[in-house]
Amino acid sequence: MTSGPAGAPIPLREVMSTVRLIVAALASAIALPAAAQTTPASGGPLPPAVIEELVVANRILADRGIIDAYGHASIRHPGNPSRYLMARAIAPALVTADDIMEFDLDSNPVDRRGRSMFVERFIHGEIYKLRPDVNGVVHTHSMGVIPFGISQVPLKPVIHTASFLHVGVPVWEIREAGGVTNMLVHSAALGRSLAEKLANKPVVLMRGHGNVVVGGNIRVAVARAVFTDENARMQATAIALGGPLNYISPEEGAMRDGEDGSRGDPARAWDLWKASAMKTLPK
Amino acid sequence: MTSGPAGAPIPLREVMSTVRLIVAALASAIALPAAAQTTPASGGPLPPAVIEELVVANRILADRGIIDAYGHASIRHPGNPSRYLMARAIAPALVTADDIMEFDLDSNPVDRRGRSMFVERFIHGEIYKLRPDVNGVVHTHSMGVIPFGISQVPLKPVIHTASFLHVGVPVWEIREAGGVTNMLVHSAALGRSLAEKLANKPVVLMRGHGNVVVGGNIRVAVARAVFTDENARMQATAIALGGPLNYISPEEGAMRDGEDGSRGDPARAWDLWKASAMKTLPK
Amino acid sequence: MTSGPAGAPIPLREVMSTVRLIVAALASAIALPAAAQTTPASGGPLPPAVIEELVVANRILADRGIIDAYGHASIRHPGNPSRYLMARAIAPALVTADDIMEFDLDSNPVDRRGRSMFVERFIHGEIYKLRPDVNGVVHTHSMGVIPFGISQVPLKPVIHTASFLHVGVPVWEIREAGGVTNMLVHSAALGRSLAEKLANKPVVLMRGHGNVVVGGNIRVAVARAVFTDENARMQATAIALGGPLNYISPEEGAMRDGEDGSRGDPARAWDLWKASAMKTLPK
Amino acid sequence: MTSGPAGAPIPLREVMSTVRLIVAALASAIALPAAAQTTPASGGPLPPAVIEELVVANRILADRGIIDAYGHASIRHPGNPSRYLMARAIAPALVTADDIMEFDLDSNPVDRRGRSMFVERFIHGEIYKLRPDVNGVVHTHSMGVIPFGISQVPLKPVIHTASFLHVGVPVWEIREAGGVTNMLVHSAALGRSLAEKLANKPVVLMRGHGNVVVGGNIRVAVARAVFTDENARMQATAIALGGPLNYISPEEGAMRDGEDGSRGDPARAWDLWKASAMKTLPK
Repeated sequence: MTSGPAGAPIPLREVMSTVRLIVAALASAIALPAAAQTTPASGGPLPPAVIEELVVANRILADRGIIDAYGHASIRHPGNPSRYLMARAIAPALVTADDIMEFDLDSNPVDRRGRSMFVERFIHGEIYKLRPDVNGVVHTHSMGVIPFGISQVPLKPVIHTASFLHVGVPVWEIREAGGVTNMLVHSAALGRSLAEKLANKPVVLMRGHGNVVVGGNIRVAVARAVFTDENARMQATAIALGGPLNYISPEEGAMRDGEDGSRGDPARAWDLWKASAMKTLPK
Repeated sequence: MTSGPAGAPIPLREVMSTVRLIVAALASAIALPAAAQTTPASGGPLPPAVIEELVVANRILADRGIIDAYGHASIRHPGNPSRYLMARAIAPALVTADDIMEFDLDSNPVDRRGRSMFVERFIHGEIYKLRPDVNGVVHTHSMGVIPFGISQVPLKPVIHTASFLHVGVPVWEIREAGGVTNMLVHSAALGRSLAEKLANKPVVLMRGHGNVVVGGNIRVAVARAVFTDENARMQATAIALGGPLNYISPEEGAMRDGEDGSRGDPARAWDLWKASAMKTLPK
Repeated sequence: MTSGPAGAPIPLREVMSTVRLIVAALASAIALPAAAQTTPASGGPLPPAVIEELVVANRILADRGIIDAYGHASIRHPGNPSRYLMARAIAPALVTADDIMEFDLDSNPVDRRGRSMFVERFIHGEIYKLRPDVNGVVHTHSMGVIPFGISQVPLKPVIHTASFLHVGVPVWEIREAGGVTNMLVHSAALGRSLAEKLANKPVVLMRGHGNVVVGGNIRVAVARAVFTDENARMQATAIALGGPLNYISPEEGAMRDGEDGSRGDPARAWDLWKASAMKTLPK
Repeated sequence: MTSGPAGAPIPLREVMSTVRLIVAALASAIALPAAAQTTPASGGPLPPAVIEELVVANRILADRGIIDAYGHASIRHPGNPSRYLMARAIAPALVTADDIMEFDLDSNPVDRRGRSMFVERFIHGEIYKLRPDVNGVVHTHSMGVIPFGISQVPLKPVIHTASFLHVGVPVWEIREAGGVTNMLVHSAALGRSLAEKLANKPVVLMRGHGNVVVGGNIRVAVARAVFTDENARMQATAIALGGPLNYISPEEGAMRDGEDGSRGDPARAWDLWKASAMKTLPK
């Protein structure tokens, strides 16, 4: 919180929104010279705890069944907002600290050393470009959400832990962006189209593919990915019961999702999921 | 560790136990003046077996998938009906004896020591106020019941292990109690409204949130939470088959649920679930 | 196989059926003196391997998720067809050799030694009385079958591993046998009614309760319990797809289920399930 | 164990390996006269890594829940296209290198040594005959696909990982091939009929039974079996939502499935699934 002229507090959200517009304007104003696959400079060294956080995020997503072999998680470089960190192309359950690579927002690797990279890393880079408020991005094929991505039935919040869905969940149709494709977000253009469909929302479904979930930090993004999948499964069951459903209203969602700390004590879920994923649950 | 007179180390647990007794004695001796947020006196020291029972209840609920990160379980203080016991704000799978706190029925902590508390603890306190027959309360987000909380299809018993549902399962609509809320039972007023909707029944659904399950002791409450979730899942499947369903009748439910021991040998489930949750299943 | 007058083989099944009728007639003809809870004599000592087989059956049913805390499995005494063996009242996952008790067909214990007994043991005794071909009985609350027990949609075979269902799966309505009950088969009269509904079939559903599955030996009964549950789940999914379904025909079922060895190499499943349940899977 | 010249024990595995080489050499040298049930010559010795690959495939299929006790996987002999390799009749979760047997394309064993064989091995032999492009075959009873095998609703791709389904998924009706059967593919004639229904496609459903999935190598066949099951489950959920669905189009499927490497980095899934199945996931 900060204060306006009359001393009334200006919500952080509005301040960030303004900052975002300025950043976008600056980005448009600067014409960067075209260059083929330059090797970008590093955003700077990282504390081990930051890397560890991303490793744990990967393991949690695997342990919760949100990501099997495919899908990935990234964080924005805490020291340089134009860099992000993501594992080399490897299943999230197998990620260790040594697998983490650094990329610029065009998704060029800082220090490739021959490692294979996710062909869909553009999802991450393009979202970090358009969403300065986002510092964690998760892409999943989670089985609960796929049916909603191919259906005309909208995904809507049925439980308050997924109240962030109240703003609506857009479905990205890759056909509109790229015609006939191999369904993969293998270019910056496709990544940008997806990021634009996501717009200012927390989740976007990808038709015939999965979803992308974002957050102000990776913990929020991971929790949203888990709760989005659970919500989708429960909504499908509720629809099959027949009759009208009583969804979380936009007003309730805004109230729940808008408050600090209202996201249900996120540390509690993280601590549990980390203990489970890292096999340190108490005896 | 510290050392006793003879130099032998005294386990921290014992020291803490003694400290707790002293604190309890002091608390009982001092008549605190009435004030907002007064610190209530303890209901008295507790045998370790009572604490252990509550720890096991937490672990079982996690191990059975009834509670993930959120949700909580409490017991009424066996020595003082105007006190209850519940863990600090922590995922049930991680609860140990040291996490158990004591509260009065207004949900003020007896001995907070800076620990974070469940914001929804009012669910427990207000139910203990209105239901002297209840000595165990469980709040869950169990995935089987959420669809029924947002549907107009009533939850009804499809298997005798859930025969206690024959009295009907009310759905608490927080909008009626609090208008637009963040969906959490974060006040005594909301807790009382929920307790009144529960009335004299064993289970109440919370729209867009989960349920609350009560029992004469924590074992019964835990078993009912497990069987309510199973019942909901099987009822949803049966509804999807199409055609009329043959539910447990009110008369059958009354017969089954009314007898002592008719609840199907509850110790048998508890012993199994405890062995599984505490990882002591036979080889 | 044996031979008829013209030398044509008479199927074993028919011979057994005749034997059964004779046994039943004899049983009706003999008026046993009323006696309160006599202690029957033992059917004789048992090789450890027989006990072990029953222990493994219990563990498999738990490990496969067919039985949770409730439900039970029994075998007929190999040395005396008027005795059967079953665990004391304990969850199947916890059964060890020391828990196995012996009963006569009226379900009186041979050597109780103060142990608690399943109140529904009459299911087993009464079936062994009416079905001399049965040497293994399993009672479950398996979640796949409950919906079919309360629905008018008949359970039918959708996969050949459950081809034994081709003879039809009766649903036992306890109301017809006992009016308003606590839903438990707590008497010989209820057990006999259930056994009569089972008749010569392998599976009977119990409305609002579960099922009973029988076999010529316990391995067959266990396998049938597993495959019946799987079949029910897949049939429910198929029904939800909409449109007509192509079930295993009675002729196919008879062909598959009638041949020796046609039950798909039962040892293969047993060996796997045993390794999993007893935690001896290869590394 | 036996002892070498210097007294050091020679592992049984090495002895067996040598025995196997000698047997293979002898088998190649001896030209057996043509006869009913001739014993075919071996296709030649195999590197341990080839056997290991097939063992891992078996374990993965079990670990992923695609195959329980029944079902099997085979590979074409890398040194002789008219031979294939498959385990003796045993549950895939239990397969070790010593269980692998060699067959000719008529499914006669090269070196039976009294081992029991899958009665449905003709599925494999007949497909290898008709499909020179296929080097790995998997037969499953996976629970997701059974409903589609008995329904008139076609299985269609809902996620790009199953884009190979875009060519259509034929359903083999054993009644058309064999009239009333015991549902098993226990002859070359039935195997050929099934192979002809598969034609040039990757997957064929078997009504009331399961499916067969093929690939250019066993890794592709295993991955397709996993993704076909996942696709079926998600499609069933999507259908239950109601309304039209937006499937992967034939053009998208062709684009995705046609490119090398477009199958989504198959090594990534294999490495993960192998680590999970062989219990070598990182701590």
